[in-house]
Amino acid sequence: MKVKTVTVKLNTHCYDIIIGPNLIAQAALQINHSFKQKDFHQTRLAIVTDTNVASLHLDSLQAELTKNKIHTVPIIVEAGEQSKSFSTLQVVIDKILATHLERGDCVIAFGGGVIGDLAGFAASMIRRGMNFIQMPTTLLAQIDSSVGGKTGINSRYGKNLIGAFYQPQCVIADTCVLDTLPLREFRAGYAEMVKYGLINQPDFFEWLEKNGQEIFSNGPLRTEAIVRSCQFKAAIIAHDEYETGERALLNLGHTFGHMLETATAYDSKRLIHGEAVAIGIVLAHQFSAQLNLIDSTLINRIEVHLKAIGLPTRLKDIPGGLPNAEALMTLIAQDKKVSQNNLTFILTRGLGQSFIAKNVPSDAVLSFLEQKLTEIR
Amino acid sequence: MKVKTVTVKLNTHCYDIIIGPNLIAQAALQINHSFKQKDFHQTRLAIVTDTNVASLHLDSLQAELTKNKIHTVPIIVEAGEQSKSFSTLQVVIDKILATHLERGDCVIAFGGGVIGDLAGFAASMIRRGMNFIQMPTTLLAQIDSSVGGKTGINSRYGKNLIGAFYQPQCVIADTCVLDTLPLREFRAGYAEMVKYGLINQPDFFEWLEKNGQEIFSNGPLRTEAIVRSCQFKAAIIAHDEYETGERALLNLGHTFGHMLETATAYDSKRLIHGEAVAIGIVLAHQFSAQLNLIDSTLINRIEVHLKAIGLPTRLKDIPGGLPNAEALMTLIAQDKKVSQNNLTFILTRGLGQSFIAKNVPSDAVLSFLEQKLTEIR
Repeated sequence: MKVKTVTVKLNTHCYDIIIGPNLIAQAALQINHSFKQKDFHQTRLAIVTDTNVASLHLDSLQAELTKNKIHTVPIIVEAGEQSKSFSTLQVVIDKILATHLERGDCVIAFGGGVIGDLAGFAASMIRRGMNFIQMPTTLLAQIDSSVGGKTGINSRYGKNLIGAFYQPQCVIADTCVLDTLPLREFRAGYAEMVKYGLINQPDFFEWLEKNGQEIFSNGPLRTEAIVRSCQFKAAIIAHDEYETGERALLNLGHTFGHMLETATAYDSKRLIHGEAVAIGIVLAHQFSAQLNLIDSTLINRIEVHLKAIGLPTRLKDIPGGLPNAEALMTLIAQDKKVSQNNLTFILTRGLGQSFIAKNVPSDAVLSFLEQKLTEIR
Repeated sequence: MKVKTVTVKLNTHCYDIIIGPNLIAQAALQINHSFKQKDFHQTRLAIVTDTNVASLHLDSLQAELTKNKIHTVPIIVEAGEQSKSFSTLQVVIDKILATHLERGDCVIAFGGGVIGDLAGFAASMIRRGMNFIQMPTTLLAQIDSSVGGKTGINSRYGKNLIGAFYQPQCVIADTCVLDTLPLREFRAGYAEMVKYGLINQPDFFEWLEKNGQEIFSNGPLRTEAIVRSCQFKAAIIAHDEYETGERALLNLGHTFGHMLETATAYDSKRLIHGEAVAIGIVLAHQFSAQLNLIDSTLINRIEVHLKAIGLPTRLKDIPGGLPNAEALMTLIAQDKKVSQNNLTFILTRGLGQSFIAKNVPSDAVLSFLEQKLTEIR
């Protein structure tokens, strides 16, 4: 009863996201289930994780799998975004190959978004594709990065510029693990839930306004929020696995958000991804208002909720200075979502009425940014 | 009339292999054709090639594209297998990203198998998949490695252990370019054609027995041989894009062949891939004879043809010594086609009657290898 399943239905592949409390303690059962037709005891698992998650949860996971006679090989990388690098990727691949794991064996990504992206990308490449399971341990990873098959690493030319679309065999999201997540990380993940509501689910946004605080405690509402988020994201990617169309809606708040992350040099002391998204969501709504698509009532409502959760909403909430508007525009134009220099933004016509706006004139963005920067000058 | 097209029909993707003389001089036309719906003049091309091909053909290709107002960026790597490395891959990716090429732009692999594997793998990873065109310049690449979407690099643990299935937008095979190919390389590519006949096309093998020498001169028979080879390979991969079944037939001669390549440390002075395949094909037939699947008449017939072409057929044709049978077995067991330590070989029941043999007992292989090694002791 407590464990819920969301099925991701793609053209050539179908897999389950299993969501609920204490799933690490049932990992063998769930993994076995996802490999139905096999004698799983002959399969070996490489568990890719980071130093933080390893110290908190690796022993429990390994104990559970060893108890069930599943052979595991832990591969531990440094916690943090810097592990999404070519050099760490090569180390992970080498370690997996060194254990002679084969195509039918499996890589488990046990961690947050960095681990999911890194381990998934490694799994996609080894022997042109090994089995792969996501066990996300952050709210952001459970509702967003572990779902949809985007994997990859960063380049000196930008984030996530190198990667693959690679779908897991299943996703196992243990909601209890989130109790060990720092509050700031939890809030950052929450910003993506708010985004899902604002894209095209006004009722989910209203539900969050009412129940959002409850999600911070472990219980059925937390599971429900994660389930609803995964259902939403699964529906989007079922229509557009390779981001040729509506999947771009998921970038609501992200063009501005990435701009801010780059402007703050991805310094997590100043800004983490979900915080940048929270501010980016507000900016996207303010920009929509400037284009006369919505009025300021909606902006206020969104800000009230994000602030109640403890998230930043304005440029002034970012510690330290920011570049000027021209410099920020350069960062936007380098963003990989820019196609042939025509700016694409996700804008909105009302609560949960987001849409993909192509050919947004860059001078409109520039004057909007200039105006926003006056708030902090 | 002179230009032929073979269409590769996959579940989610369909593309043409264009085969004929003087196609470099028509490259803009052919590339434009493969990007039907686009204003191609806005698209930019990265041409990945090696030092050998660059000195012979890069000027012609760039002149043709520049004449047609297509912007090109050449990326030249060292010729040779050592370029299928993580470090060269990173250099190629960095150079492509440095030019700000976008997802809708295109990478051309202009070279042999190494370049196709390396550039295709890079294209698969950049922005999770850029457009990609193969312009193979060796016989081996035109009939084999450029067709089917296997891309990748080598690892210290083995060849091609890191890679992706990534299909091109089109393949452009200029048969005139083969006139600049060293004779030894041409013969090595020829061995793969023989393999196609022996898998399941006895009439193609007979055609090669009759016309094989003609293919070494540029003319309609060369084009026909390449067309027939591509038709055969396209049919196999249409059924089994991701090598879960019959695509494994393409490994005829390759388990023994890879063993010999590894045993000679991939030293191209001693053995190149197609030569290893030629010897491997004979070994696979001899092993089939030892298992009483065929008699020696067929082995002799195949050897006569391979020798007439100038290819090696026996272990004694490899300059320098070889490890003992136990050591060779270790190399076979490490081969990536080995699944869970049960040996899989492609064996045959007659001319063009190959099949996938699973669970081949390793002691049968060992005693076969011991017997073969006595020929050179």
